[in-house]
Formats: sequence, C-alpha cells, structure tokens
Amino acid sequence: MNKKYQELSDELKRLSHLGSILGHLGWDMQSKLPKGAFTARQNQMTALTCILHEQSTSEDLGKLIYDLYEKGSDGYNDLEWKNISLAKRSFEDSIKIPSELIKRRAEISGLGFQKWLEAKQSNNYQIFAPLLQQYIDISRECSHHLNPEKHPYDVCLDGFERGYTSKDIDAIFSQLKLGLSKIYNKIQAKGSIAKPLPKQKFEISKQVQLIEEVAVALGFDKNIGRIDTSEHPFTGGGHNTDVRMTTRYDENDLNSALLSIIHETGHAIYEQGRRTDQYQDTPVSMALGMVVHESQSLLLERRVGQSRAFAEYCFPLIQKYFPEQFTSWTPEDYYLLVNQVGPSELRIEADELTYPLHIILRYELEKDLFNHRIEVKDLNEAWNERSLLLLGFKPESEASGVLQDAHWGDGCFGYFPVYTLGAMAGSQMYETFLTSNPDAETNFAKGDFSNLKSWMNKNIHAKGQLQSAKSLISSVTGTAINVDNYLTYLDQKYKKIYNY
Amino acid sequence: MNKKYQELSDELKRLSHLGSILGHLGWDMQSKLPKGAFTARQNQMTALTCILHEQSTSEDLGKLIYDLYEKGSDGYNDLEWKNISLAKRSFEDSIKIPSELIKRRAEISGLGFQKWLEAKQSNNYQIFAPLLQQYIDISRECSHHLNPEKHPYDVCLDGFERGYTSKDIDAIFSQLKLGLSKIYNKIQAKGSIAKPLPKQKFEISKQVQLIEEVAVALGFDKNIGRIDTSEHPFTGGGHNTDVRMTTRYDENDLNSALLSIIHETGHAIYEQGRRTDQYQDTPVSMALGMVVHESQSLLLERRVGQSRAFAEYCFPLIQKYFPEQFTSWTPEDYYLLVNQVGPSELRIEADELTYPLHIILRYELEKDLFNHRIEVKDLNEAWNERSLLLLGFKPESEASGVLQDAHWGDGCFGYFPVYTLGAMAGSQMYETFLTSNPDAETNFAKGDFSNLKSWMNKNIHAKGQLQSAKSLISSVTGTAINVDNYLTYLDQKYKKIYNY
Repeated sequence: MNKKYQELSDELKRLSHLGSILGHLGWDMQSKLPKGAFTARQNQMTALTCILHEQSTSEDLGKLIYDLYEKGSDGYNDLEWKNISLAKRSFEDSIKIPSELIKRRAEISGLGFQKWLEAKQSNNYQIFAPLLQQYIDISRECSHHLNPEKHPYDVCLDGFERGYTSKDIDAIFSQLKLGLSKIYNKIQAKGSIAKPLPKQKFEISKQVQLIEEVAVALGFDKNIGRIDTSEHPFTGGGHNTDVRMTTRYDENDLNSALLSIIHETGHAIYEQGRRTDQYQDTPVSMALGMVVHESQSLLLERRVGQSRAFAEYCFPLIQKYFPEQFTSWTPEDYYLLVNQVGPSELRIEADELTYPLHIILRYELEKDLFNHRIEVKDLNEAWNERSLLLLGFKPESEASGVLQDAHWGDGCFGYFPVYTLGAMAGSQMYETFLTSNPDAETNFAKGDFSNLKSWMNKNIHAKGQLQSAKSLISSVTGTAINVDNYLTYLDQKYKKIYNY
Repeated sequence: MNKKYQELSDELKRLSHLGSILGHLGWDMQSKLPKGAFTARQNQMTALTCILHEQSTSEDLGKLIYDLYEKGSDGYNDLEWKNISLAKRSFEDSIKIPSELIKRRAEISGLGFQKWLEAKQSNNYQIFAPLLQQYIDISRECSHHLNPEKHPYDVCLDGFERGYTSKDIDAIFSQLKLGLSKIYNKIQAKGSIAKPLPKQKFEISKQVQLIEEVAVALGFDKNIGRIDTSEHPFTGGGHNTDVRMTTRYDENDLNSALLSIIHETGHAIYEQGRRTDQYQDTPVSMALGMVVHESQSLLLERRVGQSRAFAEYCFPLIQKYFPEQFTSWTPEDYYLLVNQVGPSELRIEADELTYPLHIILRYELEKDLFNHRIEVKDLNEAWNERSLLLLGFKPESEASGVLQDAHWGDGCFGYFPVYTLGAMAGSQMYETFLTSNPDAETNFAKGDFSNLKSWMNKNIHAKGQLQSAKSLISSVTGTAINVDNYLTYLDQKYKKIYNY
C-alpha cells in the first residue's frame, strides 16, 4: 500500500467521522432535542457543516487526490481505486459550492425543521411557507453552482441517486400511473375484503416490545443500533455501527408503528450491513444512493412484511402481545387487513398499490415549484387539488396534507421519486432472491429471515459504492428498473386477493 | 461596540458551539450509545476535539485576543472585558498543550469509558486498570505542560475550580474528618431512628413520573432540558438551552432515583439559569467551576431535599404514586428515613454526614496515585483497606467499590474534592438565602420553590464567570468556605434527629 493512498484514506475516514457527527445531531434533533434548543442545535450544525466543507475542499486534500488520480489505477485493487475516484468526484462537487452558501443553507436547516414541526403541530402551512421558499431558493442556487447547464431539479435528483433524470422518471411514472389506475379500477369494483382493525386500545409499551421483536427477527442488530420515537419515522444515526431507527405510536392503530418499523428495518440492515473491514468509513463502503436504500426498505416492507408468509409468523406474535384484541382473527385476516387497498391520507400509511400515486403527487408539485408553475404560498391549494385528481380526495387538514412529510421540512427536494424507483428495484431484487432461495417463504413463516438478510448483505450492502445504482440493479436483477415487471407483480397479487 | 471585540465574541461563540457538540456526544455516549458503537464515537470525539484545540490555538485568534487585551479595558463593560481576559487565559492554557497530546488523550477517553463500563458490569477492576494507568500518565503529562512547577495533582484540581490547592483541601479535610467522626460517634451510640423502606416493588414507570414532577417543582424547565437513564447519574447536554439530566432506577429502592434527581436538578437549574442575552455562549456566561456547580446541586439535595419542609411536600406525592407501599407512614417517617446515618457502599447514596468520608477516601487515593505511593494495579486493595479505615467496611464487590464512580472512567482526577467543598459552600449559601427569605420553608412545604430558584439564578447562575469561586462564595455568604459553620449545622441537625 503506498503511503499517499494511506494518507488519503486516513483523511477521508476523519472527514467521515465529522460527517457522522452531523448525522447523529440530525437524529437527535428529530428524536430527543428539547423544543427550546433548536437555535443551539442549529448553531452547532452550522459550525460543524462549515468546518466539514472547508476541510473537504482544502488545497492539501485536492493536491493529494489529484496526485494519486493522475498516476492511474496501477497497483490498486478495485476498492482502493474506487476510493480515489469517489474522493475526486466528491471534491470536485464540493469546491463548486461557495462556503457562504454552505453556511446560509446550514443556518436555515435547523430553523426550517423547527418551523415545519411547529406548522404541522398547529396545522398551519403558512408558518412553514416562508422557510420553504428559502429552501427552494437555496436549492436552486446550489444546483446552479453544481451544474449551471442542467435543470436545477435534475441536479436535486442527482443528489439522491446519480443517473436518474426527470426525463427517465416522467417516462416511468406515466406508464406506472396508467397501469396502477387499471388495477385500482378493478379493485374498486370489488369493494372491501378485510375486517377492520378492532376498535380497541393497543398499549404503547406492548407495541414497543412487539416492534423490537419483529425488527430483531428481520435482522436488526441492537448491539449496533437503537429504536426511538419521533414525529416522522426515519433511520439515521450517522454510522454503520450506530444505526438509529425511529417510529411513532398510535394507541388506536397497531399497524402504524409496526409497518413503519419493517420499512425502517430495511434501511437499518443496509446500514448495518456495510463493510466493517479496513474500508469502513471510506467512500466505497458507503450506501450507494437512495434508490437502492429505498429498494431495501420497500423490499422488506412490501414483499416481505405484507406477504402471507409474514402474516403466518407475525400474527401469532401480535396475538401474544394483544390477546384480547384479536380473539376471532386468523393470519389470513391479518394478511387481508394489511393488503387492503383504499384511500389513505398519509403516504407512509398508504397501501402498496396507491403509494406510488402519493409519490407522483409530490414529484409533480416539486417540478412545478422548480418550474415556477406554482408559487410556494399556493402550495397547499395545489396539493389539495392534485390530491383530489390523483387520489380521489382532499386531505382533511394541512397537517395530514401538505405538511405530512418531514422531507420539505429538511429542505430536501427530489427525494420522493426514489421511493417508487426503490419499490420497483426492491421488487425485482426480491424475485431474484426467490429464484435462488425457493424455500425462503417457508422459513419466513417460522420467523427465520436469515437467508434473505445474508443475500441482501452480500449482493447489495457490502457492495457499497463500487457500482452505480443503475449498474447494480441490472447486474443483480438482470434488467433495469422495469415498470411492466412491477405492474405484473401487483396485478397478480391483487387478483388473488380481490378475486377480480 | 468595537468591531474587533465583535469579531472575538463571534469566534468565541462559534468555538463554544463546537464545544457544546462534544458535550452532547458525551451525554449520548453515557445514555444512548449502542454498545457496538464506542469506537465510532471515540473517532468522532477525537476528530472534533482536535479541531477544537487547533482552532482555539490559531494564530489569528491569538493575535485578535492580544490586540484587544493590550489596548486595555477602556470602553468595555465588565462582561466584555471579562470575556477578553478569559479568552486570553484560555488561549494561554490551550497553546501549552501539544496537539498530539490532545489527540492521544481524546483517543483513550472513549475507550476508557467503555472499559470502565465493561469492568463495572463484569465486576472486574483489572479490565479497567490498564486504561486507568494511561489516563494517569496522560494527566500527569498535561499537568506538566500546563505548569511544570506545580504538583501535577494541584494542576488537576485547578482544572475543576481554580484557586483550590491540595494544601487548602488537606487543611479543610483534616478538620472536617475530626469533626465528622465526633458527630458520628454520638449517632452510633443512639442506634437506628427510622423505619426501613418498605420491602416492596416501586414500579419504574411511576418513578419516572414522580421524579419528573419533583424536578419540575424544583425549577427544572423541560422546554430546555430532558431526563434520561444512564449507568451513573449526571447532568450534561452541552448547552444552557439543552440541559440533560440522567438518573438510574432501582425497583426496590425509590430513593435511589429520587434523591439523585434532586441533586442533578441543582446542576440543571444552574445551567438553565445561565445568561441567555447577547453574552450567551461567551466565556463570561459559562458556569464558574465545579465547586460552585456542586454547591448548587448539594444545596438542593441536602439543605432542601432532605429538609422537613421538603418531606411535607414530597411525601404526599410519593403516596400518590405508591399508595400501597406507604400505608402507615407520615412525612416525619420519610424525613427520618432520608436522614438516617449509616454505612453506605455507594457514595451517591451516602447520607449527608458520612458523604465527605467517601470523598476523602477518593481524594487520598488520587493523591497517593499521583505521588507514586500506590500503584494502579493495587488500587482495588488500597480502596478496600482505606474504606475499612474511613467508613468501617470493605465493599462487597469491585463494582460497588473501586469501580462505582464514572469519574475515573472519564479520566477525571481532582474532581472529588469539589463535592465536599461544594456541599459546604452550598450550605453557607442556603443560610444566606434564608436570612432574606425567612418564610421560604413554609413555601417549600407547599411545593413552591420559586423564591429559592430566583435567588440562585440571580446570585449565582447569572453571575457566570465574572468573579472567581472564592470571591463569589465570600461575597454571597460573607465568608470563605468555613468548616466550623458546616460542622455546627450538621451537629444541630443530627442532635435534633438522634436526640443525643
């Protein structure tokens, strides 16, 4: 190993430690921070963000990277050479953004989240609107610095998974919208198929135990992770040995926490499954991007967590914790309950079929905001109108409509499409997994998910950033993200359930 | 306001934000961090500690400070000029310690705490001993850099409260030891005066509610703070708007969490009571030092929390949460229970009278370690022998003996004496408070502690670092820390309780 490479690797690890502090502070902000401490947190995160940007764009680091890069890949293994290339790409992106913009962006981030939370809790979008405007302006400015020739929204998309443009996504989403509505129409003609969730209380302390048991069964390692509560479920924590999932509990709805924790466990086992060898904390060991991240969470949530095999395993567990609530229920009843299709105000509680419509709603609104076709102040009305068109209803409140997601509260645009791209990629991956593990679902029914976790660890998590997302998905599943595949899977699934 | 002062003030605030991140990470390490994440946390804290040291010793900062200092105090108010002086002192201390030593110290800190925890949990001192040796070596090295002419242990003492040397403390402690043993002998001749705590379970979820109610009544503001659980109770969090207390719960002993939270609330209201005006986050707004900090916690724990008036308020509350456990008890019974004198293995559960003996034990051992009179490997035996001499018993286990406190696990030497200096200072302060608030205890009995909190806020917390600890204590109480005062107070209190 040459000395200069070692020097680069050490410096990249050190920068990664600083970055992981920011990840940790973000987790704490959403899950533990006292209300009166937002300004302090904002000051902390701004100070550290500026240092991280400064040190990630230092002349010494640039020189080191170019020295190594220009000598070529001879003498390096794939991982080492990838680290040099990734460091170069990241350096080149970072130096494009002026420090004062980094500072300005960091300064409004803490405030933005605080205002979003306040707006949501008081059901008043206008509290958040001015911050959203600032977020969009700054986002536009960053995009311009990163690539003035590209549409600013495409630059945002690139930030979450390189290589997917709004042109790609438009094509995928228009085909998907059509296909989904065909299935949806057939389902609506059939009416309801499931018993409603018993109208009883589900004690939160028992829900806590139940979701922990499920997360651990699915592969979550509590030795290097935690589960906490937050306004909006997420997975964070900042390090692959410190992976922190959150959820929120509803005393009247057991599935609110349970289904969301299955989703988060998909993210968490991705993070926990990243390399822990000498490449730990170097760029190549990091998660690839958010399409692949969501492929893991949605594979687990949809293909596993909403399967018959899972109901066989999980329903007896639910009965163990809530014996009085489910006296005359069977696993099949529970399977039908979680697979019932119907309007849901909240994206994260939507069924598998209508979920992409929630995504399309947000994606279209984001594009319109970035194209000046709608104004921030009118976003609430635009949301309600588009919701009526796409989902068939207007939300009952601003809190359960335009304010429901934390993403805009984080100043994060271009994220939503990755959920649906991820759902499709995850579904393809699951089918590939099943071809080499035909008995897997028999094991799932017994609560044994170890083969799936190993397969995901090996084929996705440990791969880190060695390939692009497009290349990883193709090499694992044999094809690019394929809308036909996905629609066929959904049609076959719901045909059996709704008997249409 | 001159521009250069503003520049200094902004930079000191920024450094303080970085420092507060370290405070936060320390809180998390002791209360939330998954076991497998210690190395990651250590890497994070090392990276940030090094940056903070580097930026606190930068040439630019030094130049700015000296430019301002050399022009003199004209045109500044007391607070501003104090900030310049404190910045100079802090800069001069920081540049004395080489960066590589800062790095080495930071590197072993995370590991040290992890090993202490492991040693305590597996009741095996030898797991921790090698780290303790490293801590002492590094501590000695730091002391030498800070002041090669002073005894290294005196430099350690200075780190927690400037101005108290081991010579001062020896004099105080020898007088105290003698006085305490006289009172102790009289008490032992009388035997037990209190009923034992009922041998029943105290449900932890109810303890959580009880201690929160008590902390809030005493003045803890949940809007800018939290209460969590940790192996060893402490107050941290890193910012005066984000003050995080911890405690630990024992299902068999209600007082374990309750008494420790009263103590921590004293620290917490100090932190929460610091200035929030334009001087927030500048040196002058910071807590003075640990003698004064402990004076606040021990004033609350001992003079308030163990008073008759407090029992009048608190005992009905205890009965509200635990109606079945205390059927035939009165507030007076509870008062006697918490004031019962007798051997306690754990320092933090010791009664007010024998508590200083626990401190003297640790202080003498620390001095012996720094004077090479005992070796680290023999510390466990030395602890046990000295415990027999001072306290009359050998601890039952290493976990409840030499490993019981987190301080050495943090590499922190010279801290323990501040508890007893603080107890004496706090007791004097409380007497001063009573002279101007003669009805205070009548209000305490009704659960109203607001006058006390206001008095502490005004006379101690808001004063920040304007004076030295010695000067603050004298100006508030009219005298330096006075052993006779303290012994008189204890003698009068226990005379009434034990009727000797």
